[in-house]
Amino acid sequence: MKELSSLQIERLKYQPKLPSSLSGGINNLTLVEGNKTECVKDAEQIKELFKNTYGKPVVTFKSSNQTEDAPVRNIGVILSGGQAPGGHNVIAGLYDALKQSNPQNKLYGFLGGPSGIIEGEYIEFTPEKINAYRNTGGFDIIGSGRTKLETEEQFQKALKVCQNLNITGVVIIGGDDSNTNAAMLAEWFVKNNAGIQVIGCPKTIDGDLKNEQIEISFGFDTATKTYAELIGNILRDANSAKKYWHFVKLMGRSATHVGLEVALQTQPNITLISEEVEQKQMSLKQIVNYIADIVAKRADMGKNFGIALIPEGLIEFIPEIKSMISNLNDVLATLENDNSYTSADENTKFNIIKNKLNAADSAVYDSLPVMIKKQLLMDRDPHGNVQVSKIETEKLLIEMVSNKLTEMKKAGTYNGKFSAQCHFFGYEGRCAFPSNFDADYCYSLGYNAFALMKFGLTGYLSSVKNLSSPANEWVAGGVPLTMMMNMEKRHGQFKPVIKKALVELNGPVFKVLEENREKWALEDKYIFPGSIQYFGPSCVCDITTETLKLENAAKLTAV
Amino acid sequence: MKELSSLQIERLKYQPKLPSSLSGGINNLTLVEGNKTECVKDAEQIKELFKNTYGKPVVTFKSSNQTEDAPVRNIGVILSGGQAPGGHNVIAGLYDALKQSNPQNKLYGFLGGPSGIIEGEYIEFTPEKINAYRNTGGFDIIGSGRTKLETEEQFQKALKVCQNLNITGVVIIGGDDSNTNAAMLAEWFVKNNAGIQVIGCPKTIDGDLKNEQIEISFGFDTATKTYAELIGNILRDANSAKKYWHFVKLMGRSATHVGLEVALQTQPNITLISEEVEQKQMSLKQIVNYIADIVAKRADMGKNFGIALIPEGLIEFIPEIKSMISNLNDVLATLENDNSYTSADENTKFNIIKNKLNAADSAVYDSLPVMIKKQLLMDRDPHGNVQVSKIETEKLLIEMVSNKLTEMKKAGTYNGKFSAQCHFFGYEGRCAFPSNFDADYCYSLGYNAFALMKFGLTGYLSSVKNLSSPANEWVAGGVPLTMMMNMEKRHGQFKPVIKKALVELNGPVFKVLEENREKWALEDKYIFPGSIQYFGPSCVCDITTETLKLENAAKLTAV
Repeated sequence: MKELSSLQIERLKYQPKLPSSLSGGINNLTLVEGNKTECVKDAEQIKELFKNTYGKPVVTFKSSNQTEDAPVRNIGVILSGGQAPGGHNVIAGLYDALKQSNPQNKLYGFLGGPSGIIEGEYIEFTPEKINAYRNTGGFDIIGSGRTKLETEEQFQKALKVCQNLNITGVVIIGGDDSNTNAAMLAEWFVKNNAGIQVIGCPKTIDGDLKNEQIEISFGFDTATKTYAELIGNILRDANSAKKYWHFVKLMGRSATHVGLEVALQTQPNITLISEEVEQKQMSLKQIVNYIADIVAKRADMGKNFGIALIPEGLIEFIPEIKSMISNLNDVLATLENDNSYTSADENTKFNIIKNKLNAADSAVYDSLPVMIKKQLLMDRDPHGNVQVSKIETEKLLIEMVSNKLTEMKKAGTYNGKFSAQCHFFGYEGRCAFPSNFDADYCYSLGYNAFALMKFGLTGYLSSVKNLSSPANEWVAGGVPLTMMMNMEKRHGQFKPVIKKALVELNGPVFKVLEENREKWALEDKYIFPGSIQYFGPSCVCDITTETLKLENAAKLTAV
Repeated sequence: MKELSSLQIERLKYQPKLPSSLSGGINNLTLVEGNKTECVKDAEQIKELFKNTYGKPVVTFKSSNQTEDAPVRNIGVILSGGQAPGGHNVIAGLYDALKQSNPQNKLYGFLGGPSGIIEGEYIEFTPEKINAYRNTGGFDIIGSGRTKLETEEQFQKALKVCQNLNITGVVIIGGDDSNTNAAMLAEWFVKNNAGIQVIGCPKTIDGDLKNEQIEISFGFDTATKTYAELIGNILRDANSAKKYWHFVKLMGRSATHVGLEVALQTQPNITLISEEVEQKQMSLKQIVNYIADIVAKRADMGKNFGIALIPEGLIEFIPEIKSMISNLNDVLATLENDNSYTSADENTKFNIIKNKLNAADSAVYDSLPVMIKKQLLMDRDPHGNVQVSKIETEKLLIEMVSNKLTEMKKAGTYNGKFSAQCHFFGYEGRCAFPSNFDADYCYSLGYNAFALMKFGLTGYLSSVKNLSSPANEWVAGGVPLTMMMNMEKRHGQFKPVIKKALVELNGPVFKVLEENREKWALEDKYIFPGSIQYFGPSCVCDITTETLKLENAAKLTAV
């Protein structure tokens, strides 16, 4: 029986690249401080909430000839939230920097996500453990979890656990929410003179943790390449068999960076962008008509096949659906103990709902296919709310487009065959072996996190910039977490949070889609990226995403 | 706007490897004839049906110092049936051999599958066309189709088209059915003194076109590697998040070679093999209990996650379901115009069906989840039969396992959480860039097909053997198509067909699963193959499938 695949064995040997400022050694660094910073919005409130950590400068590192002192210290690390390729390399980079700094240093890994630091569940990393996970995907080295680190009680417990292990620094690898919590924990530790620093690392395949200071979160590169591989393969299949329309839903509920990036890599016929749907106040009917129109035009050209990319969160961005669901939640709450509803058959239920919803929402509900009407009534979360994530948007669209095409056929405006296949990709890409880019980027982020610790910084996000250039030209440093924050309403209360990056309709990435999508819809301009390559020509192995390339190019032009 | 991906550009440059017997040049070959052959079964009938092409010898090639004469000739090629990675390379190999033999030779490609040779739809290949498709996935170079080439009228039309183009040889790239038709066409051409040879090439990702003479069909290697990549990624995700059971359905209705190969590459917790279910006469309930038992045992160990591989064709291999569907088809036929049925609501319909089915089938029908009961009544093919392929087996199993676990929880024999995700992989792998193995194998098959033509052979399958060894040691030759045939009942009539290879429960590949599956079920022995690599270390780029390795090793031991 095998223990490891050939690729696993070979990837363990890969030595990730570091920015030149860091490659001179962890004890040979100079800190360069920039100006004091302000947060993106709501400065008064953020300042009040982060009295001790607000307004710090952005920092960068320079290699220095002088070797700094390196007293012994213990650090803890947490993987938080959904998996993203490269998490193991963040830990490996952190470990290598820490051991290089002082071989007496220890790195603890908290198990199962943030709950590990609260419950005191941990391991101490050994060289064997680290070496078995270098350049591999997954978060299985210590596991991950979704516990939110935010209450006074949790902070107290975490403090005790850290004190027991003599830990003076915690690295939290997570998305926007986890890093918001990192900022709160950092503030709390300073306020309580705990002597424990907190550094965050920007993780999420969704790509929505980015801003002027953070070019991209890790994992986005590998995940989008994996989805692009699959979508390229499906495009080629569609273009060979010429008989199916493939509707592909892509993971990511709150932003459509993944869909946009994959579209630029593969050039499919249809790409829906949630942010556009919301901003242009598109109705479900308009979306269905848009798709049906392209299907019909292609059918006129003799092409009864194609591919449509659907963002997972689409439904929540359609204003009329959002309104209907909110109304439906209220209505369902009133019916919970109503026997005439609960014991009714399906059709009667539909009618009761239809009559209870207000006119506009009722019309929207009534326009949905039976399958979806049913799903909306059945799958409810523990609070009684509709579970939007369970709605099979790709099937909803297939059914509605199919119905629209039947109408069009009767009206003589469509004359083709519509046969559809649906796919949902998400889990397929979150734990892939990190691309060379993510392997290098993550290793640098982890290594750099320890550098920030060394200079006594806390409440910072590890930052590596200039990512479109070769790794040795990357710029390592740190960004105060508060700088990215504003106040947002969550569960009815205003809270400090890191602002999520949505797709900007006037940004350089969406522009490429906008300029080309009409052509891509009708002509077959498919591109087949193939699978991620880790060896071989640099033009294949070391390419980053179109998103990063375009955004960095736009920044240069703006300067 | 991009036209090609970086990988596309690099792969176009790859020069596929040839067996040493062929690499000396297409006009420098000697034919080595083996003994006369017999078919696998039903020799009398097959001999009668293939009077002119039956009993020919297996042949192989040797490199020769003498250069043979190479008169000008035109060849046509057809891609038939579902896509498989490497099809383009078969054509490239054929083209290169043909042009090398005599630059005046022409290669025609029939468009859209076998219908192209009937309707006279074709292109002539140019160097530019061929060069743009080398080492790429898909069948889009000329398209594919599923028209069956089997009637006298079709043969007559094909003859005319060939005569018009002065074509004296046709290469059919297809699976078992397509090659059965190739054999019939070959026989017909000889019988009618058409002077047109027919050579087949063994294609199918399902891996069920193999036998003593054919080690593996092309595409199986690349497709299974692509599925194994995805399943490895999902395993790593499951093992990191530790909260989901993933049920993955894999394409392939008639055999489970794909599922078995992927299982050996990734070592998931549960792997169902259709052939085993049929042979052991397992009921749906037994299958559900088998899965639920493993879920419960893992839950006892604190592991509420795992992965189960489900073959697409499973349902058709469960004896009781097969019987019930057959009975249901009869019942539905009698109800077609029965108003009291057609206008009834869902529950009434279920009851009518339940009462009309015989006792055993009725019990089976009644035991199914509502979703499936409904699907069985709704999705019917043009003949009124249940469309088994539309049944979502992965969802059926999830629902039934979930129900079983609820029962077990009540009985105190299960204490865990069961949350499941489902996946279906098929289209994702059929058009991937061929692995180095498939790129080399396909190129050799195509090149070799022309060699068979040169020696005047017809009704042969292009064969390249000894595939576990490096490419230069491969053995090129041909196998008479009739040798693989027997008589089988199709649509009520006995017909000559190439015998499909099913998973053998006493074969060396299944044995590995059998010996290890208990361990794989409970311990986490996951392997992560990662994405197909085309460059870099040979141990990563040039590995073939476990199936081929084990089967060839067993053959050697047997000798």
